[in-house]
Amino acid sequence: MEKTAQNAFPEAYLDHSATTRVSSHVAQVVLEMMTENYGNPSSLHHRGVLAQQALERARRQIASALGAREEEIIFTSGGTEANNLAIQGLARARRRRGDGLVTSGMEHSSVLGAVHHMEEEGFRAVLLAPGPDGRIQPESVAAAVDEKTLLVSCMLVNNETGAVNPIGEISAAAKAKNPDVVIHCDAVQAFGKLPIDVRRLGVDLMTVSGHKIHAPKGVGALYVKKGVRLVPLVYGGSQERALRPGTENVPLACGFGAAAEDMLRGMAENTARFEALRRRLISGAEKIEGVCINSAPGGAPYIVNLSCPGIRSEIMLHFLEGRGIYVSSGSACSKGAKSHVLAAMGLGQERIDSALRVSFCRESTEEEVDRLLEGLAAGIAMLEKNRGRQR
Amino acid sequence: MEKTAQNAFPEAYLDHSATTRVSSHVAQVVLEMMTENYGNPSSLHHRGVLAQQALERARRQIASALGAREEEIIFTSGGTEANNLAIQGLARARRRRGDGLVTSGMEHSSVLGAVHHMEEEGFRAVLLAPGPDGRIQPESVAAAVDEKTLLVSCMLVNNETGAVNPIGEISAAAKAKNPDVVIHCDAVQAFGKLPIDVRRLGVDLMTVSGHKIHAPKGVGALYVKKGVRLVPLVYGGSQERALRPGTENVPLACGFGAAAEDMLRGMAENTARFEALRRRLISGAEKIEGVCINSAPGGAPYIVNLSCPGIRSEIMLHFLEGRGIYVSSGSACSKGAKSHVLAAMGLGQERIDSALRVSFCRESTEEEVDRLLEGLAAGIAMLEKNRGRQR
Repeated sequence: MEKTAQNAFPEAYLDHSATTRVSSHVAQVVLEMMTENYGNPSSLHHRGVLAQQALERARRQIASALGAREEEIIFTSGGTEANNLAIQGLARARRRRGDGLVTSGMEHSSVLGAVHHMEEEGFRAVLLAPGPDGRIQPESVAAAVDEKTLLVSCMLVNNETGAVNPIGEISAAAKAKNPDVVIHCDAVQAFGKLPIDVRRLGVDLMTVSGHKIHAPKGVGALYVKKGVRLVPLVYGGSQERALRPGTENVPLACGFGAAAEDMLRGMAENTARFEALRRRLISGAEKIEGVCINSAPGGAPYIVNLSCPGIRSEIMLHFLEGRGIYVSSGSACSKGAKSHVLAAMGLGQERIDSALRVSFCRESTEEEVDRLLEGLAAGIAMLEKNRGRQR
Repeated sequence: MEKTAQNAFPEAYLDHSATTRVSSHVAQVVLEMMTENYGNPSSLHHRGVLAQQALERARRQIASALGAREEEIIFTSGGTEANNLAIQGLARARRRRGDGLVTSGMEHSSVLGAVHHMEEEGFRAVLLAPGPDGRIQPESVAAAVDEKTLLVSCMLVNNETGAVNPIGEISAAAKAKNPDVVIHCDAVQAFGKLPIDVRRLGVDLMTVSGHKIHAPKGVGALYVKKGVRLVPLVYGGSQERALRPGTENVPLACGFGAAAEDMLRGMAENTARFEALRRRLISGAEKIEGVCINSAPGGAPYIVNLSCPGIRSEIMLHFLEGRGIYVSSGSACSKGAKSHVLAAMGLGQERIDSALRVSFCRESTEEEVDRLLEGLAAGIAMLEKNRGRQR
């Protein structure tokens, strides 16, 4: 770490798809639930009732942000658990009806990991590749679905490129082929930033998470359409309809509910800001020789993936870090491993090795984008010169 | 709810084994991690490094409270998940070596639920009954262990009676019978309140939880002795040694670490207070006709189980609630269901139907105990009179 350099620059955190700062409103809600309304919702006395009421309010907030009913929301410890509950839980619940799981190579590691684990339990997985625009085609889903397919799992917004999959069409195509297929959608990178309506999308299971929208890490939820049965991952009490037992994380659930409501309220304004920042970043990047944009047009405006071919991601990431600018190489979850998403999109090795993900939040500024652009230009100049010297 | 009554009385919360209020110190730690040190530990940049450092500090704090090594601590979303990871994870990892799981009828529902689920996967479970003192005898464990036994799971402190099991002797007896047996101990109700040393206890897996010791709900940990392999419950990134993937809940882990350190520091003083409160409660209760104590002597001093035979638990619970006094009927987790623990101890139906659990925290006061005693006496007088009238 370059302490001096970091002290010299104000921080420009542009890695909001990795995680966000908890807003002061949400932090206040969490604090109140930790220190005042601190009961256990399972307690029969007044303290329990108050906690239960707060939890149910949070459930309504999440449900309402998804167009779902309150009783269709199961709180989890985050996106990874929700994705696993959806995939492992659905596959095990329908084991007798078939064996097919269809997903894509661009999914989050928790979807791919759960699907892979189900293969070890005897299920059959099909992994679809996205097109060059980074999106999954409804036709390729339809082609992969057969009469033994149990589940299609496809993310809404890709965490590395911002590509938005046509989930409504994917669901329709899959169900036209096999009406019993269950559609799971990992919407972690979409929730709170794009409008979502589970019924319009034709989705049966949907994963959302708190810490990408200024709620704390450690809370997520799974939408489970009424009538869809899952086998739980853990056993114990009857909390969360016994689908997810254990004392409910009331403070974080309430923080998540508040954050979802805040995002919903600010959605139009936030989108306008994201789009302006993306335009500024892309048009600025086009003026810098040696930068190319990997995100296809039409994606979510708060994620821009770009490459500086010839300069490895980590090198540029640490150069930018020295100027107080924080971006990511691929997704945080893979901790520096090469992107399976860009590879699935068919990008060349040099583009993949140099990819950077820039991601905005509703408080990101034009100044931060300008500093990133200056940083990229300075990095290319310096790192290429160094490379030249080494030759 | 009797709002008027509740407003007339100050609150006497005596249900700390259900959950506790988060201390202001811990809340401050959580708040700072949510709003300042908010990075994703998997991020390669400075924000990620700072979060990673805080997480590792929390891990050291938990390890040190258990006499374990840092790398032996896996953070989870709470006790239920940790118990399930231990039991499901160990059984699946050793499937080829045997099929026996030994546990007791006094365990938490998450242990019993996980064991029962493993039975559905083809494992063989033995459930031991506690003696009349509410404790599991090492001899009965030894008698249940055979050459195909994989795991013995036994709690340290029972959540309903406070009975303390002789885990060291249980472990020694089990391992004398079969040295390959893995010992799991659910220490949720003991952690932070009784001294624990996993090596001295001869334990291979131990579950601890935050919200019983003034840390928030939604965080726990599993001690996994070096060399003990588990199959994960969820799949995804490589967080927590890939045993528990998903973005780490850094704020709550740090709160948990701070709470554990606080409890460790105050242990002698807290124990003295618990013992004084228990003496006061028991000697006061002995003077009230119609109250009997279910907890055997020698248990953890912060849990007292008592009965007012003839008055159903819920009736007395709500009577006390009307005076601002909060206790529990059995464990919060079973939400009013009859106690399987008292039944396993061989108590009569009338004692079980009227059982109340009183549980202290380090801030509980003599005045609260006195108010409870007055409440019990008043309740017995009034509820028995009413019953008399109804006859």
